[in-house]
Amino acid sequence: MAQKPLLLVCNDDDITAPGIEALVAVAKEFGEVWVVAPNAPQSGTGHAITIGNPIRLYPYHFPVQGVQAYACSGTPVDCVKLATGVVLKRKPTLILSGINHGANTSISVFYSGTMSAAIEGAIEGIPSIGFSLCNYDPAADLSAAKEVVRRLIDTALKHPLPPHTALNVNIPYLPLSEIKGIKITRQAMGRFIEEFEERTDPYGRPYYWLTGKFYSEDNGQDTDIWAIANGYVSVCPVLLDLTHNEMRKQLHSWEKSVL
Amino acid sequence: MAQKPLLLVCNDDDITAPGIEALVAVAKEFGEVWVVAPNAPQSGTGHAITIGNPIRLYPYHFPVQGVQAYACSGTPVDCVKLATGVVLKRKPTLILSGINHGANTSISVFYSGTMSAAIEGAIEGIPSIGFSLCNYDPAADLSAAKEVVRRLIDTALKHPLPPHTALNVNIPYLPLSEIKGIKITRQAMGRFIEEFEERTDPYGRPYYWLTGKFYSEDNGQDTDIWAIANGYVSVCPVLLDLTHNEMRKQLHSWEKSVL
Repeated sequence: MAQKPLLLVCNDDDITAPGIEALVAVAKEFGEVWVVAPNAPQSGTGHAITIGNPIRLYPYHFPVQGVQAYACSGTPVDCVKLATGVVLKRKPTLILSGINHGANTSISVFYSGTMSAAIEGAIEGIPSIGFSLCNYDPAADLSAAKEVVRRLIDTALKHPLPPHTALNVNIPYLPLSEIKGIKITRQAMGRFIEEFEERTDPYGRPYYWLTGKFYSEDNGQDTDIWAIANGYVSVCPVLLDLTHNEMRKQLHSWEKSVL
Repeated sequence: MAQKPLLLVCNDDDITAPGIEALVAVAKEFGEVWVVAPNAPQSGTGHAITIGNPIRLYPYHFPVQGVQAYACSGTPVDCVKLATGVVLKRKPTLILSGINHGANTSISVFYSGTMSAAIEGAIEGIPSIGFSLCNYDPAADLSAAKEVVRRLIDTALKHPLPPHTALNVNIPYLPLSEIKGIKITRQAMGRFIEEFEERTDPYGRPYYWLTGKFYSEDNGQDTDIWAIANGYVSVCPVLLDLTHNEMRKQLHSWEKSVL
Protein backbone atom coordinates (compact mmCIF):
# COMPACT_ATOMS: atom_id res chain seq x y z
CA MET A 1 0.00 0.00 0.00
CA ALA A 2 1.30 3.45 -0.90
CA GLN A 3 2.21 5.73 1.96
CA LYS A 4 -0.21 8.53 2.77
CA PRO A 5 0.91 11.97 1.55
CA LEU A 6 3.06 13.77 4.10
CA LEU A 7 2.11 17.42 4.39
CA LEU A 8 4.34 19.91 6.21
CA VAL A 9 2.63 23.09 7.37
CA CYS A 10 4.33 26.37 8.26
CA ASN A 11 3.35 30.05 8.42
CA ASP A 12 4.72 33.43 9.49
CA ASP A 13 1.95 34.78 11.73
CA ASP A 14 2.93 32.21 14.41
CA ILE A 15 1.78 28.76 15.38
CA THR A 16 -1.22 30.06 17.35
CA ALA A 17 -2.77 32.02 14.46
CA PRO A 18 -6.28 31.06 13.27
CA GLY A 19 -4.96 30.90 9.68
CA ILE A 20 -2.58 28.01 10.34
CA GLU A 21 -5.23 26.14 12.34
CA ALA A 22 -7.59 26.41 9.35
CA LEU A 23 -4.88 25.22 6.95
CA VAL A 24 -3.94 22.26 9.16
CA ALA A 25 -7.60 21.23 9.57
CA VAL A 26 -7.98 21.05 5.77
CA ALA A 27 -4.57 19.43 5.20
CA LYS A 28 -5.50 16.66 7.68
CA GLU A 29 -8.20 15.46 5.25
CA PHE A 30 -5.45 14.52 2.77
CA GLY A 31 -2.75 12.72 4.74
CA GLU A 32 -0.24 12.81 7.59
CA VAL A 33 0.31 16.37 8.78
CA TRP A 34 3.28 17.84 10.62
CA VAL A 35 3.55 21.46 11.71
CA VAL A 36 6.78 23.36 12.30
CA ALA A 37 5.90 27.03 12.70
CA PRO A 38 7.29 30.11 14.49
CA ASN A 39 6.58 30.61 18.18
CA ALA A 40 6.25 34.38 17.63
CA PRO A 41 5.07 36.63 14.80
CA GLN A 42 7.49 36.63 11.85
CA SER A 43 5.60 38.74 9.32
CA GLY A 44 7.92 40.63 7.01
CA THR A 45 10.95 38.47 7.75
CA GLY A 46 11.31 37.53 4.08
CA HIS A 47 13.89 34.86 3.40
CA ALA A 48 15.80 35.48 6.64
CA ILE A 49 17.63 32.56 8.24
CA THR A 50 19.16 32.41 11.71
CA ILE A 51 22.92 32.03 11.53
CA GLY A 52 24.26 34.03 14.48
CA ASN A 53 22.13 32.32 17.13
CA PRO A 54 21.00 28.79 17.89
CA ILE A 55 17.42 27.77 17.17
CA ARG A 56 14.98 26.00 19.50
CA LEU A 57 12.18 23.54 18.78
CA TYR A 58 9.37 23.23 21.33
CA PRO A 59 6.83 20.35 21.17
CA TYR A 60 3.44 22.01 20.72
CA HIS A 61 -0.02 20.64 21.37
CA PHE A 62 -1.72 21.60 18.12
CA PRO A 63 -5.52 22.02 18.35
CA VAL A 64 -6.23 19.60 15.47
CA GLN A 65 -6.30 15.93 16.45
CA GLY A 66 -3.58 13.61 15.21
CA VAL A 67 -1.23 16.39 14.14
CA GLN A 68 2.34 16.52 15.40
CA ALA A 69 3.68 20.01 15.89
CA TYR A 70 6.74 21.98 16.96
CA ALA A 71 6.92 25.67 17.69
CA CYS A 72 10.24 27.04 16.47
CA SER A 73 12.18 30.04 17.75
CA GLY A 74 13.41 30.91 14.24
CA THR A 75 12.07 32.36 11.02
CA PRO A 76 9.64 30.67 8.61
CA VAL A 77 12.61 29.60 6.43
CA ASP A 78 14.33 28.16 9.54
CA CYS A 79 11.13 26.21 10.23
CA VAL A 80 11.21 24.57 6.80
CA LYS A 81 14.93 23.81 7.12
CA LEU A 82 14.54 22.29 10.60
CA ALA A 83 11.46 20.33 9.55
CA THR A 84 13.15 18.72 6.56
CA GLY A 85 16.58 18.44 8.21
CA VAL A 86 15.73 17.34 11.76
CA VAL A 87 12.04 16.67 12.42
CA LEU A 88 10.68 14.66 9.49
CA LYS A 89 11.73 11.10 8.76
CA ARG A 90 10.74 11.28 5.09
CA LYS A 91 10.48 13.95 2.42
CA PRO A 92 7.16 15.83 2.48
CA THR A 93 4.85 15.39 -0.49
CA LEU A 94 3.87 19.04 -0.27
CA ILE A 95 4.71 22.04 1.91
CA LEU A 96 1.82 24.35 2.78
CA SER A 97 2.37 27.81 4.26
CA GLY A 98 -0.29 30.08 5.75
CA ILE A 99 -3.14 30.81 5.67
CA ASN A 100 -1.59 34.26 6.00
CA HIS A 101 -3.71 36.98 7.54
CA GLY A 102 -3.27 39.56 4.79
CA ALA A 103 -2.47 39.70 1.06
CA ASN A 104 0.88 38.69 -0.39
CA THR A 105 0.33 39.98 -3.90
CA SER A 106 2.78 41.92 -6.08
CA ILE A 107 6.12 42.92 -4.55
CA SER A 108 5.05 41.56 -1.12
CA VAL A 109 6.39 38.19 -2.24
CA PHE A 110 9.87 39.56 -1.40
CA TYR A 111 8.93 40.59 2.17
CA SER A 112 6.56 37.76 3.06
CA GLY A 113 7.67 35.10 5.52
CA THR A 114 4.73 32.96 4.38
CA MET A 115 5.94 32.97 0.78
CA SER A 116 9.60 32.63 1.78
CA ALA A 117 8.74 29.36 3.55
CA ALA A 118 7.13 28.12 0.33
CA ILE A 119 10.08 29.33 -1.75
CA GLU A 120 12.48 27.55 0.63
CA GLY A 121 10.49 24.34 0.17
CA ALA A 122 10.76 24.71 -3.61
CA ILE A 123 14.52 25.39 -3.36
CA GLU A 124 14.77 22.08 -1.49
CA GLY A 125 12.89 20.34 -4.31
CA ILE A 126 9.52 20.00 -2.55
CA PRO A 127 6.43 21.47 -4.28
CA SER A 128 5.13 24.21 -1.99
CA ILE A 129 2.09 26.45 -1.80
CA GLY A 130 1.74 29.69 0.17
CA PHE A 131 -1.84 30.73 0.96
CA SER A 132 -2.86 34.28 1.89
CA LEU A 133 -6.28 35.67 2.65
CA CYS A 134 -6.75 39.29 1.59
CA ASN A 135 -7.89 40.42 5.03
CA TYR A 136 -5.56 41.43 7.85
CA ASP A 137 -8.04 40.78 10.67
CA PRO A 138 -7.03 37.63 12.62
CA ALA A 139 -10.74 37.16 13.37
CA ALA A 140 -11.70 37.10 9.66
CA ASP A 141 -14.08 34.36 8.48
CA LEU A 142 -11.90 31.58 7.05
CA SER A 143 -14.64 29.30 5.72
CA ALA A 144 -14.44 30.26 2.03
CA ALA A 145 -10.64 30.29 2.17
CA LYS A 146 -10.70 26.74 3.61
CA GLU A 147 -12.75 25.48 0.66
CA VAL A 148 -10.34 27.14 -1.81
CA VAL A 149 -7.40 25.56 0.04
CA ARG A 150 -9.16 22.16 -0.01
CA ARG A 151 -9.64 22.25 -3.77
CA LEU A 152 -6.09 23.42 -4.44
CA ILE A 153 -4.47 20.76 -2.22
CA ASP A 154 -6.68 18.13 -3.88
CA THR A 155 -5.58 19.32 -7.33
CA ALA A 156 -1.91 19.53 -6.35
CA LEU A 157 -1.97 15.96 -5.02
CA LYS A 158 -3.87 14.51 -7.99
CA HIS A 159 -1.70 16.29 -10.56
CA PRO A 160 1.67 16.46 -8.81
CA LEU A 161 3.59 19.70 -9.30
CA PRO A 162 7.24 19.70 -10.42
CA PRO A 163 9.60 19.52 -7.41
CA HIS A 164 10.88 23.10 -7.62
CA THR A 165 7.39 24.64 -7.78
CA ALA A 166 6.27 27.39 -5.41
CA LEU A 167 2.78 28.78 -5.85
CA ASN A 168 1.68 32.12 -4.40
CA VAL A 169 -2.06 31.80 -3.76
CA ASN A 170 -4.04 34.87 -2.74
CA ILE A 171 -7.69 34.49 -1.82
CA PRO A 172 -10.14 37.40 -1.97
CA TYR A 173 -12.14 38.01 1.21
CA LEU A 174 -15.55 37.02 -0.16
CA PRO A 175 -18.17 34.36 0.52
CA LEU A 176 -17.47 31.25 -1.58
CA SER A 177 -20.52 31.93 -3.76
CA GLU A 178 -19.05 35.30 -4.76
CA ILE A 179 -15.59 34.01 -5.66
CA LYS A 180 -15.61 33.92 -9.45
CA GLY A 181 -12.95 31.26 -9.95
CA ILE A 182 -9.18 30.88 -10.26
CA LYS A 183 -6.80 32.98 -12.32
CA ILE A 184 -3.23 31.91 -13.07
CA THR A 185 -1.49 35.25 -12.74
CA ARG A 186 1.80 37.10 -12.87
CA GLN A 187 3.24 39.28 -10.08
CA ALA A 188 1.99 42.87 -10.53
CA MET A 189 4.82 45.39 -10.48
CA GLY A 190 4.51 47.87 -7.65
CA ARG A 191 6.17 49.03 -4.47
CA PHE A 192 5.49 50.33 -1.01
CA ILE A 193 5.85 54.04 -0.45
CA GLU A 194 7.25 54.33 3.05
CA GLU A 195 5.73 56.66 5.56
CA PHE A 196 7.94 56.54 8.63
CA GLU A 197 6.35 57.71 11.80
CA GLU A 198 8.95 59.45 13.95
CA ARG A 199 8.31 59.40 17.69
CA THR A 200 10.35 60.49 20.69
CA ASP A 201 11.00 58.11 23.57
CA PRO A 202 10.69 59.17 27.25
CA TYR A 203 14.43 59.98 27.18
CA GLY A 204 14.10 62.43 24.30
CA ARG A 205 15.57 60.17 21.64
CA PRO A 206 13.88 59.57 18.28
CA TYR A 207 12.67 56.23 16.97
CA TYR A 208 10.83 55.24 13.82
CA TRP A 209 7.90 53.02 12.96
CA LEU A 210 7.93 51.67 9.44
CA THR A 211 4.56 52.04 7.74
CA GLY A 212 3.75 52.33 4.08
CA LYS A 213 1.14 52.27 1.38
CA PHE A 214 1.23 49.96 -1.59
CA TYR A 215 1.49 51.76 -4.89
CA SER A 216 0.72 49.78 -8.04
CA GLU A 217 2.70 50.47 -11.20
CA ASP A 218 0.89 47.83 -13.23
CA ASN A 219 -2.74 47.59 -14.33
CA GLY A 220 -2.41 44.37 -16.34
CA GLN A 221 -5.48 42.14 -16.29
CA ASP A 222 -3.18 39.11 -15.99
CA THR A 223 -1.80 40.26 -12.61
CA ASP A 224 -2.42 38.98 -9.09
CA ILE A 225 -3.65 42.44 -8.04
CA TRP A 226 -6.26 42.47 -10.83
CA ALA A 227 -7.47 38.96 -10.00
CA ILE A 228 -8.07 39.81 -6.33
CA ALA A 229 -9.73 43.15 -7.13
CA ASN A 230 -12.10 41.32 -9.48
CA GLY A 231 -13.15 38.48 -7.20
CA TYR A 232 -10.80 35.72 -8.37
CA VAL A 233 -8.37 33.54 -6.45
CA SER A 234 -4.87 34.40 -7.74
CA VAL A 235 -2.43 31.53 -8.30
CA CYS A 236 0.97 32.91 -9.25
CA PRO A 237 3.81 30.42 -9.84
CA VAL A 238 7.16 31.64 -8.50
CA LEU A 239 10.51 31.27 -10.25
CA LEU A 240 13.61 30.52 -8.17
CA ASP A 241 15.94 32.15 -10.68
CA LEU A 242 16.27 35.91 -10.17
CA THR A 243 18.40 36.46 -13.29
CA HIS A 244 17.28 39.40 -15.44
CA ASN A 245 17.98 37.79 -18.81
CA GLU A 246 16.96 40.80 -20.91
CA MET A 247 19.44 42.98 -19.05
CA ARG A 248 22.22 40.42 -19.48
CA LYS A 249 22.15 41.22 -23.19
CA GLN A 250 22.25 44.96 -22.51
CA LEU A 251 25.23 44.62 -20.18
CA HIS A 252 27.20 42.33 -22.47
CA SER A 253 29.53 45.14 -23.61
CA TRP A 254 30.75 45.50 -20.01
CA GLU A 255 32.70 42.27 -20.50
CA LYS A 256 35.09 44.13 -22.81
CA SER A 257 35.05 47.63 -21.37
CA VAL A 258 35.16 47.53 -17.56
CA LEU A 259 38.27 45.61 -16.53
CA MET B 1 26.58 73.18 -12.40
CA ALA B 2 25.13 69.68 -12.13
CA GLN B 3 24.88 68.23 -8.65
CA LYS B 4 27.49 65.68 -7.67
CA PRO B 5 26.25 62.07 -7.73
CA LEU B 6 24.72 61.05 -4.41
CA LEU B 7 25.82 57.57 -3.40
CA LEU B 8 24.09 55.69 -0.60
CA VAL B 9 26.09 52.85 0.95
CA CYS B 10 24.70 49.95 2.98
CA ASN B 11 25.80 46.42 3.86
CA ASP B 12 24.77 43.47 6.02
CA ASP B 13 27.99 42.64 7.89
CA ASP B 14 27.50 45.83 9.98
CA ILE B 15 28.73 49.39 9.76
CA THR B 16 32.13 48.56 11.36
CA ALA B 17 33.09 45.88 8.80
CA PRO B 18 36.24 46.40 6.70
CA GLY B 19 34.20 45.70 3.54
CA ILE B 20 31.94 48.72 3.93
CA GLU B 21 34.88 50.97 4.78
CA ALA B 22 36.58 49.89 1.54
CA LEU B 23 33.39 50.48 -0.46
CA VAL B 24 32.87 53.94 1.06
CA ALA B 25 36.49 54.94 0.43
CA VAL B 26 36.06 54.14 -3.28
CA ALA B 27 32.57 55.65 -3.52
CA LYS B 28 33.91 58.92 -2.08
CA GLU B 29 36.01 59.39 -5.23
CA PHE B 30 32.78 59.75 -7.25
CA GLY B 31 30.50 62.07 -5.28
CA GLU B 32 28.66 62.77 -2.06
CA VAL B 33 28.47 59.65 0.09
CA TRP B 34 25.98 58.78 2.84
CA VAL B 35 26.05 55.57 4.83
CA VAL B 36 23.08 53.96 6.55
CA ALA B 37 24.10 50.49 7.66
CA PRO B 38 23.20 48.01 10.42
CA ASN B 39 24.69 48.45 13.90
CA ALA B 40 24.99 44.65 14.28
CA PRO B 41 25.62 41.73 11.92
CA GLN B 42 22.65 41.03 9.64
CA SER B 43 24.03 38.30 7.40
CA GLY B 44 21.33 35.95 6.18
CA THR B 45 18.45 38.31 6.96
CA GLY B 46 17.31 38.28 3.34
CA HIS B 47 14.57 40.77 2.54
CA ALA B 48 13.40 41.05 6.17
CA ILE B 49 11.86 44.32 7.32
CA THR B 50 11.09 45.40 10.88
CA ILE B 51 7.36 45.82 11.39
CA GLY B 52 6.71 44.68 14.98
CA ASN B 53 9.31 46.94 16.58
CA PRO B 54 10.49 50.52 16.17
CA ILE B 55 13.80 51.21 14.48
CA ARG B 56 16.61 53.46 15.71
CA LEU B 57 19.15 55.57 13.82
CA TYR B 58 22.42 56.46 15.57
CA PRO B 59 24.78 59.12 14.14
CA TYR B 60 28.04 57.32 13.44
CA HIS B 61 31.53 58.71 12.99
CA PHE B 62 32.53 56.90 9.81
CA PRO B 63 36.31 56.44 9.35
CA VAL B 64 36.35 58.05 5.88
CA GLN B 65 36.53 61.83 5.85
CA GLY B 66 33.54 63.83 4.63
CA VAL B 67 31.09 60.95 4.82
CA GLN B 68 27.85 61.23 6.80
CA ALA B 69 26.75 58.03 8.43
CA TYR B 70 24.04 56.49 10.56
CA ALA B 71 24.11 53.10 12.25
CA CYS B 72 20.65 51.56 12.13
CA SER B 73 19.11 49.02 14.51
CA GLY B 74 17.19 47.35 11.67
CA THR B 75 17.86 45.07 8.73
CA PRO B 76 19.68 46.02 5.52
CA VAL B 77 16.30 46.60 3.81
CA ASP B 78 15.23 48.82 6.73
CA CYS B 79 18.45 50.79 6.22
CA VAL B 80 17.60 51.51 2.58
CA LYS B 81 14.01 52.43 3.46
CA LEU B 82 15.08 54.77 6.28
CA ALA B 83 17.81 56.31 4.15
CA THR B 84 15.50 57.16 1.26
CA GLY B 85 12.47 57.94 3.46
CA VAL B 86 14.02 59.88 6.36
CA VAL B 87 17.75 60.58 6.05
CA LEU B 88 18.42 61.76 2.49
CA LYS B 89 17.14 65.03 1.09
CA ARG B 90 17.35 63.89 -2.53
CA LYS B 91 17.11 60.62 -4.42
CA PRO B 92 20.43 58.74 -4.56
CA THR B 93 22.06 58.36 -7.96
CA LEU B 94 23.17 54.86 -7.03
CA ILE B 95 22.88 52.53 -4.04
CA LEU B 96 25.96 50.44 -3.22
CA SER B 97 25.82 47.49 -0.83
CA GLY B 98 28.80 45.61 0.57
CA ILE B 99 31.57 44.81 0.12
CA ASN B 100 30.22 41.59 1.62
CA HIS B 101 32.71 39.30 3.34
CA GLY B 102 31.77 36.13 1.47
CA ALA B 103 30.22 35.06 -1.84
CA ASN B 104 26.63 35.74 -2.77
CA THR B 105 26.46 33.59 -5.86
CA SER B 106 23.66 31.23 -6.92
CA ILE B 107 20.74 30.73 -4.53
CA SER B 108 22.46 32.90 -1.86
CA VAL B 109 20.81 35.90 -3.50
CA PHE B 110 17.63 34.90 -1.62
CA TYR B 111 19.32 34.78 1.82
CA SER B 112 21.75 37.67 1.44
CA GLY B 113 21.09 40.90 3.31
CA THR B 114 23.67 42.60 1.08
CA MET B 115 21.75 41.72 -2.06
CA SER B 116 18.37 42.40 -0.44
CA ALA B 117 19.47 45.98 0.23
CA ALA B 118 20.35 46.31 -3.47
CA ILE B 119 17.05 44.69 -4.51
CA GLU B 120 15.16 47.08 -2.22
CA GLY B 121 16.92 50.02 -3.90
CA ALA B 122 15.87 48.71 -7.30
CA ILE B 123 12.27 48.21 -6.11
CA GLU B 124 12.33 51.89 -5.14
CA GLY B 125 13.55 52.80 -8.64
CA ILE B 126 17.19 53.49 -7.76
CA PRO B 127 19.89 51.55 -9.65
CA SER B 128 21.71 49.45 -7.07
CA ILE B 129 24.78 47.25 -6.96
CA GLY B 130 25.63 44.62 -4.36
CA PHE B 131 29.33 43.71 -4.08
CA SER B 132 30.61 40.50 -2.51
CA LEU B 133 34.17 39.26 -2.15
CA CYS B 134 34.50 35.49 -2.33
CA ASN B 135 36.36 35.24 0.95
CA TYR B 136 34.69 35.04 4.38
CA ASP B 137 37.70 36.31 6.34
CA PRO B 138 37.03 39.89 7.57
CA ALA B 139 40.82 40.44 7.41
CA ALA B 140 40.96 39.52 3.70
CA ASP B 141 42.97 41.80 1.38
CA LEU B 142 40.45 44.17 -0.21
CA SER B 143 42.79 45.97 -2.62
CA ALA B 144 41.86 44.11 -5.81
CA ALA B 145 38.16 44.23 -4.89
CA LYS B 146 38.44 48.01 -4.44
CA GLU B 147 39.78 48.42 -7.97
CA VAL B 148 36.97 46.26 -9.38
CA VAL B 149 34.43 48.33 -7.43
CA ARG B 150 36.05 51.56 -8.70
CA ARG B 151 35.72 50.51 -12.33
CA LEU B 152 32.14 49.30 -11.93
CA ILE B 153 30.96 52.48 -10.17
CA ASP B 154 32.70 54.53 -12.87
CA THR B 155 30.93 52.53 -15.60
CA ALA B 156 27.55 52.67 -13.85
CA LEU B 157 27.79 56.47 -13.51
CA LYS B 158 28.99 57.07 -17.09
CA HIS B 159 26.37 54.74 -18.61
CA PRO B 160 23.45 55.09 -16.20
CA LEU B 161 21.58 51.89 -15.45
CA PRO B 162 17.76 51.71 -15.75
CA PRO B 163 16.07 52.71 -12.45
CA HIS B 164 14.88 49.24 -11.48
CA THR B 165 18.30 47.60 -11.95
CA ALA B 166 19.98 45.53 -9.25
CA LEU B 167 23.34 43.97 -10.03
CA ASN B 168 24.80 41.09 -8.05
CA VAL B 169 28.59 41.48 -8.31
CA ASN B 170 30.83 38.71 -6.97
CA ILE B 171 34.58 39.22 -6.97
CA PRO B 172 37.03 36.31 -6.88
CA TYR B 173 39.67 36.48 -4.15
CA LEU B 174 42.68 36.99 -6.39
CA PRO B 175 45.31 39.66 -6.97
CA LEU B 176 44.08 42.15 -9.60
CA SER B 177 46.65 40.87 -12.12
CA GLU B 178 45.12 37.39 -11.90
CA ILE B 179 41.49 38.49 -12.37
CA LYS B 180 40.71 37.61 -15.98
CA GLY B 181 37.92 40.13 -16.56
CA ILE B 182 34.17 40.52 -16.17
CA LYS B 183 31.48 38.02 -17.08
CA ILE B 184 27.80 38.96 -17.32
CA THR B 185 26.27 35.86 -15.79
CA ARG B 186 23.07 34.14 -14.76
CA GLN B 187 22.31 32.78 -11.28
CA ALA B 188 23.52 29.17 -11.05
CA MET B 189 20.84 26.81 -9.78
CA GLY B 190 21.80 25.12 -6.53
CA ARG B 191 20.86 24.85 -2.89
CA PHE B 192 22.30 24.47 0.58
CA ILE B 193 22.16 21.02 2.13
CA GLU B 194 21.51 21.66 5.79
CA GLU B 195 23.58 20.02 8.45
CA PHE B 196 22.06 20.98 11.77
CA GLU B 197 24.31 20.60 14.74
CA GLU B 198 22.27 19.53 17.75
CA ARG B 199 23.68 20.51 21.15
CA THR B 200 22.34 20.29 24.67
CA ASP B 201 22.25 23.35 26.93
CA PRO B 202 23.35 23.25 30.61
CA TYR B 203 19.70 22.55 31.54
CA GLY B 204 19.50 19.43 29.38
CA ARG B 205 17.44 20.97 26.60
CA PRO B 206 18.38 20.64 22.91
CA TYR B 207 19.18 23.51 20.59
CA TYR B 208 20.28 23.63 16.96
CA TRP B 209 22.90 25.47 14.97
CA LEU B 210 22.10 25.88 11.30
CA THR B 211 25.05 25.00 9.09
CA GLY B 212 25.09 23.77 5.54
CA LYS B 213 27.08 23.09 2.42
CA PHE B 214 26.32 24.56 -0.96
CA TYR B 215 25.43 21.99 -3.56
CA SER B 216 25.47 23.07 -7.21
CA GLU B 217 22.90 21.64 -9.60
CA ASP B 218 24.17 23.63 -12.56
CA ASN B 219 27.49 23.48 -14.42
CA GLY B 220 26.67 26.10 -17.07
CA GLN B 221 29.62 28.21 -18.24
CA ASP B 222 27.34 31.27 -18.24
CA THR B 223 26.72 31.05 -14.47
CA ASP B 224 28.03 33.17 -11.59
CA ILE B 225 29.55 30.07 -9.98
CA TRP B 226 31.52 29.25 -13.14
CA ALA B 227 32.77 32.82 -13.51
CA ILE B 228 34.15 32.92 -9.96
CA ALA B 229 35.71 29.44 -10.20
CA ASN B 230 37.47 30.54 -13.38
CA GLY B 231 38.91 33.84 -12.17
CA TYR B 232 36.29 36.27 -13.49
CA VAL B 233 34.24 38.94 -11.72
CA SER B 234 30.58 37.86 -11.98
CA VAL B 235 28.00 40.58 -12.74
CA CYS B 236 24.50 39.08 -12.59
CA PRO B 237 21.54 41.42 -13.19
CA VAL B 238 18.57 40.66 -10.91
CA LEU B 239 14.93 40.67 -11.97
CA LEU B 240 12.31 41.99 -9.54
CA ASP B 241 9.56 39.84 -11.01
CA LEU B 242 9.44 36.35 -9.50
CA THR B 243 6.73 35.09 -11.87
CA HIS B 244 7.46 31.66 -13.38
CA ASN B 245 6.03 32.39 -16.83
CA GLU B 246 6.67 28.93 -18.23
CA MET B 247 4.70 27.34 -15.41
CA ARG B 248 1.82 29.79 -15.90
CA LYS B 249 1.13 28.06 -19.20
CA GLN B 250 1.29 24.60 -17.59
CA LEU B 251 -1.15 25.62 -14.86
CA HIS B 252 -3.62 27.30 -17.20
CA SER B 253 -6.07 24.36 -17.06
CA TRP B 254 -6.51 24.97 -13.32
CA GLU B 255 -8.60 28.02 -14.20
CA LYS B 256 -11.36 25.70 -15.41
CA SER B 257 -10.94 22.68 -13.16
CA VAL B 258 -10.25 23.75 -9.57
CA LEU B 259 -13.14 25.94 -8.45
